[in-house]
Formats: sequence, C-alpha cells, structure tokens
Amino acid sequence: MDDWIQHRSAIWDDSSLLVIDQTLLPHRTELVRLTGVEDYCNAIRTMIVRGAPLIGVVAAYGAAALAAICSSVEEFEAGLPRLLETRPTAVNLRSALEVQLSVARSSPTFLQDALLESAHQFYLSEIQSSKAIGAAGGQWIEARFGGSNPIQFMTHCNAGRLATVEYGTATAPIYWLHENGLPVHVWVSETRPRNQGASLTAWELAQAGIPHTVFVDNAAGHIMQSSPIDVVLVGADRIARNGDTANKIGTYLKALAAREHEIPFLVAAPGSTFDLRAGTGREIPIEERNPEEVSTIVGHCGGDLVRVDLVPRGTSAHNPGFDITPSHLIHAFVTERGILEPAQITSLATSSAP
Amino acid sequence: MDDWIQHRSAIWDDSSLLVIDQTLLPHRTELVRLTGVEDYCNAIRTMIVRGAPLIGVVAAYGAAALAAICSSVEEFEAGLPRLLETRPTAVNLRSALEVQLSVARSSPTFLQDALLESAHQFYLSEIQSSKAIGAAGGQWIEARFGGSNPIQFMTHCNAGRLATVEYGTATAPIYWLHENGLPVHVWVSETRPRNQGASLTAWELAQAGIPHTVFVDNAAGHIMQSSPIDVVLVGADRIARNGDTANKIGTYLKALAAREHEIPFLVAAPGSTFDLRAGTGREIPIEERNPEEVSTIVGHCGGDLVRVDLVPRGTSAHNPGFDITPSHLIHAFVTERGILEPAQITSLATSSAP
Repeated sequence: MDDWIQHRSAIWDDSSLLVIDQTLLPHRTELVRLTGVEDYCNAIRTMIVRGAPLIGVVAAYGAAALAAICSSVEEFEAGLPRLLETRPTAVNLRSALEVQLSVARSSPTFLQDALLESAHQFYLSEIQSSKAIGAAGGQWIEARFGGSNPIQFMTHCNAGRLATVEYGTATAPIYWLHENGLPVHVWVSETRPRNQGASLTAWELAQAGIPHTVFVDNAAGHIMQSSPIDVVLVGADRIARNGDTANKIGTYLKALAAREHEIPFLVAAPGSTFDLRAGTGREIPIEERNPEEVSTIVGHCGGDLVRVDLVPRGTSAHNPGFDITPSHLIHAFVTERGILEPAQITSLATSSAP
Repeated sequence: MDDWIQHRSAIWDDSSLLVIDQTLLPHRTELVRLTGVEDYCNAIRTMIVRGAPLIGVVAAYGAAALAAICSSVEEFEAGLPRLLETRPTAVNLRSALEVQLSVARSSPTFLQDALLESAHQFYLSEIQSSKAIGAAGGQWIEARFGGSNPIQFMTHCNAGRLATVEYGTATAPIYWLHENGLPVHVWVSETRPRNQGASLTAWELAQAGIPHTVFVDNAAGHIMQSSPIDVVLVGADRIARNGDTANKIGTYLKALAAREHEIPFLVAAPGSTFDLRAGTGREIPIEERNPEEVSTIVGHCGGDLVRVDLVPRGTSAHNPGFDITPSHLIHAFVTERGILEPAQITSLATSSAP
C-alpha cells in the first residue's frame, strides 16, 4: 500500500484524486480513484470521504471534474448543485464551491486548469491550517496541563487527519504534543450511529502510536465523573457567527457534561468552517440521515464486512446527523490563527475562506 | 409459544423457573428453564435475565434452588455468595438474598419449601409494585401533560416488563396511560453497549401497540432541543439515601440534558431498589463489564445472530455498566407508594423490602 496513506487522507495522482475508502476502515484499507464528477458526488454522499475540511477539498476537485464536461461558465454554474446537494450541513462544501465559481468566472479561457490549480491550493491550505491549529492548541494545552502524567483528552467522532488532509483539527494539538514528546492519552467515543470514533479515530491514533481507549458514547458523563479528563477537544462542521457549533450528533451532550465537571471544551476548526452568514445555530440546517444507520450496523465478522439488524422489524428510527452546541458551553475555538473566544469570531470576517 | 410471554418475563412451571432469553431478543423468542442453582447464577451473570427487580426475583428462586442441595442453614449461607457475586450493582439481588437468608434461619425444618414460598411472594410483590408505580406515575403525568396530543416520553435502557415480572417500572406509567386511553409516544434510546432500548424496550412497546421511535444515545440532547419531550422516565438499579441513583450507563447524560431543557426527570423504582444503607452514590459500586461489549456488537443477519467487530484489533476499551445520576438532577421518584421527592426517601425506611 502506498506510503502516503500513513499520514494523508487523499492525494492527487495522474488526473484523479486517490482517497481512502473510509466506509471500510478500520477493517480494510482500500483506495478509491475519483475521476468524473459523479465519482466525487458519490464519494461525498456515501461518506467514502467525510469530515468538513476534507469534504471541502474533495468538492474543489469535484468542481474541476465538473468543468471538464462543461463548455461554458454558465453550464458549470448550472451543474454545481450536483455537488452542493451531496451533504447539507458542512459549510466547507458550499464555500469551496463558491470559491471555484468565482475562479471559473474570472478565468473563462482555461476553465479546468484554473479550477484544478485552485483545488491544489485548497489541498495545501488545509494542511497548513491543520498544522497551525496543532501548534496553537498544543501550546495552549501544554501551558495548562503539560507535565509528567499523560494529558487526558476526550474527543468525539473523527476530527483527525481522515477528516482533513493531514494532522486533523481536533487531533492536531494531540499530534503536536505527541511529536513534542509530551505524554498524552485519548478517550475516544464510539460515535454511534456510524462509529467514526471507534473505527476511524482509534485507527489513526493506533497508527501514530498514541495511547487511547474507546468507550460507548453513554459513558462520557461517567468518565468525566470518575476519571481526570483535562480537556474535551472536538471538531466542527459549521460554526455560526455567535459561536454556536454544529458538529457530529452527541457533541452537545459531551459539552453539557464538560461544563458540569468544569472541563474546558475546545472546538478545533479552520477558518473555512466558520459561517459568518449564519447568525446563530438556528440558521444551520441539520441533516436527517437514513434511519438504517440507527437500525443496523456494519461490522467485521470472519473476514467479511456485514450489516446486522439491531432493532425489531418495522421499528421506526430517527437519525439526525448533527447537533448544535450553544456558544456558552464552548471555552474557546482553536483555529489556524490561534485561540479565539466566541466573541472574537467576527474578527475572521476579513478572510475566512482559504 | 406460551401466552404468558405476551405480558410477563418469567413464570414458575413444574419445579423450575421459565424465563425469556433476553440476549436473543428482539430477533428470536426462546425460553430458558432454570432448575439448579448454577442455572440461576448463569442466567443472571450472562444477562439472560436482567433489570434490577427481575434479578431480585430470579435470585430469590435461585436461593430456593441452592437450598435444595444444602443440608443445613450454615451450608446454605456459605453458598449464597455464588448468587450474590453474579452482578454487583443491583441492590435487589442482595436484598432478595438477605430476605431468603432470614427465611432460612427462621424455618430450618422445611428449608426449601419455605424459600420457594418466599420466592413466589417476591414474584407477586413485584407485579403489585409495578402496577402501583404505573398508577402513581400515570396519574401524575396525566395531570400535567394529558390532552389530545400524544404525551412525549423519553426513556433509556429497558425498565419495562422484561426488567420486572409485569408492567415494568419506567414503562408502567406509560402502560397505565395507554390502557386509560391517553395517546402516548415514546422516544427509545438505543442504549449501547448492549442496546436494551433498541432491542428490548422497542420489542415490548411494539407488542403493546404503543407508538415509539428509536434513536442513538448521542441524539438525546438534540431531540430535547428540537422536539417537545414532556418527561424523561427511567428505571434504577440502586438508589442511595440522598437520592443519588445508579442506573444504566448514559442515564446521567440524559439527566443533564433534561435539566438544561427544563424537562422533568423521573426515576421509577419499587422500594426494593432503594438502598438506605448507602448514604450517597459514592457508596454504590459500579460494575466494570467485559470490554468486548464495546468492541463488538451482536446483530441479526440472514437469519443468524452474529457478533461483529467494531474497533481495530488490539484497541483497548472501557466499559462501565452504570453511572450515578446525582439527586439534584432528579425531579421525583415514582414508587409503589406514590411520588417521592429525594428528601422523602428516608420515609421508606420502615419497610423497604418487599
């Protein structure tokens, strides 16, 4: 298997984007090659790729693939909803496509080349963002909790390198501390219904040699009651101007418990995840996903991946993909420009897109 | 299949206790016959039967089975730890065995018959308790939330008839309201790691024709944010004198969210679940269960029940079975003697055992 998968989630290769199929992790590591625009739409829709920053990067490359089959900017613009409608909550998807549209409008002659160049910029910019988030968060945490005992983190879902291109968002400070020789230990929530914590975060932390323990989401409160958690660190799918944060379903419950136990609750995200047009969380649409994600689960059994039923036949299920953590529960945001308190978000207005 | 399984969890039949194997629900309905004391220990330990009140009843019959192989009260007393050590958290187990020990001490001549008679009393007493809990809670809820719109409940785990003998504890008021013609709808949390909500509560509500919707535990906060939940109603495994309540892992997070959204959080339990010897929740031992319950899950696939792996090989997992919901988050207790506020618990001191 190619070396790049040890530290990145995607790589440009011979006119197409190679990505790790995240629906098969941690049991199988397979690559998917995205070439035509429908490959890109499908990869986002079916969560072969997921995580707000990575979705933005993949969408930017998808826009270049769309341009390859368009003969005018108008035709390109008319085709953008195909990509936009693949996931409703992540703001990075929309902002990436808006940037690509403005690139297309300003360079009509070499439409596809300009969009591809712009997509490469998205890719590199995400890596730089993650690296800067790692340093900012790592330094903040080291100053407060660094010492000879492992710093105890709790995280939710996967806001790791698999959700970005490299380093991750919520994991970036953890990688930074680990690389700087500080002992860390990560409590990883399973993250039903799709188990991105148990499958993706545990997989990437194991690859990096970082000690970690998986727990079911229900145990988050008990762990904070009974074990010394220093900091809760999560990613975000969209952050409103007042700091209300949409992130994977279950984030809100962990934020409530963190407040109860006076544990700092940090949200790590690049500027591209802040949506300054949304005043509060009420303006962020919450994606309602397929109830089958609740009533069934995919696991590994005897060498095969199988989907098993968990509920009685005919039972109805509700499956919101995200929840809103209100700003007042968030201690601070860790961004590529440093640590921001909720009131400082509007300072991002000058250049929030990559 | 026998008719009794439509409304009870266990029945005495021809010198043994017939129970529904709850590890196979909702996919298969199979009965297990408990005869020797080791059958009883195994049924409790492997969760063929579970739920604090039902564990107490099964342990009482288990004590009678133990007596059958003992030639003296001393030998009987020496054998009791076999039953006591099967599950550490539920107080009903201990109190049932203490009652049986005192019965054994006061009737040495007909040891087994007296213990069997006492076990039958436990069985009938649990049914009466559940019925009384249903009426007390149902009337309280009807007075506040009854009307033409369905009363919206949220519950956790299974505190239904499968956790008792009949009616249940947390479900008893729901059954009472349903039988009295009031429309109800129940939001049922999956309850990882063993999914008792998605499998057992959904199964028994479906059998009773009560509308319900299953959700992953992570969604509890979002549902309270976005939908009108009237009341959160859960059971308990052990309640300390100050009202701190041990219940299935994840209860605490739901209680924190209920407080945030000003939704009454009720704990339904018979007097036998109150442990007046424990001053606070700190004195209640929390069972640490097999990490395999986190790293794997059992589901139904192509007619078979299969256990599938959810995490990467070698990942460590933490699996506390219960958490403590502090008294200040609990609006009231629904008992067979009516609605009690936490400060009124000590009034149970006069006769807390069945």
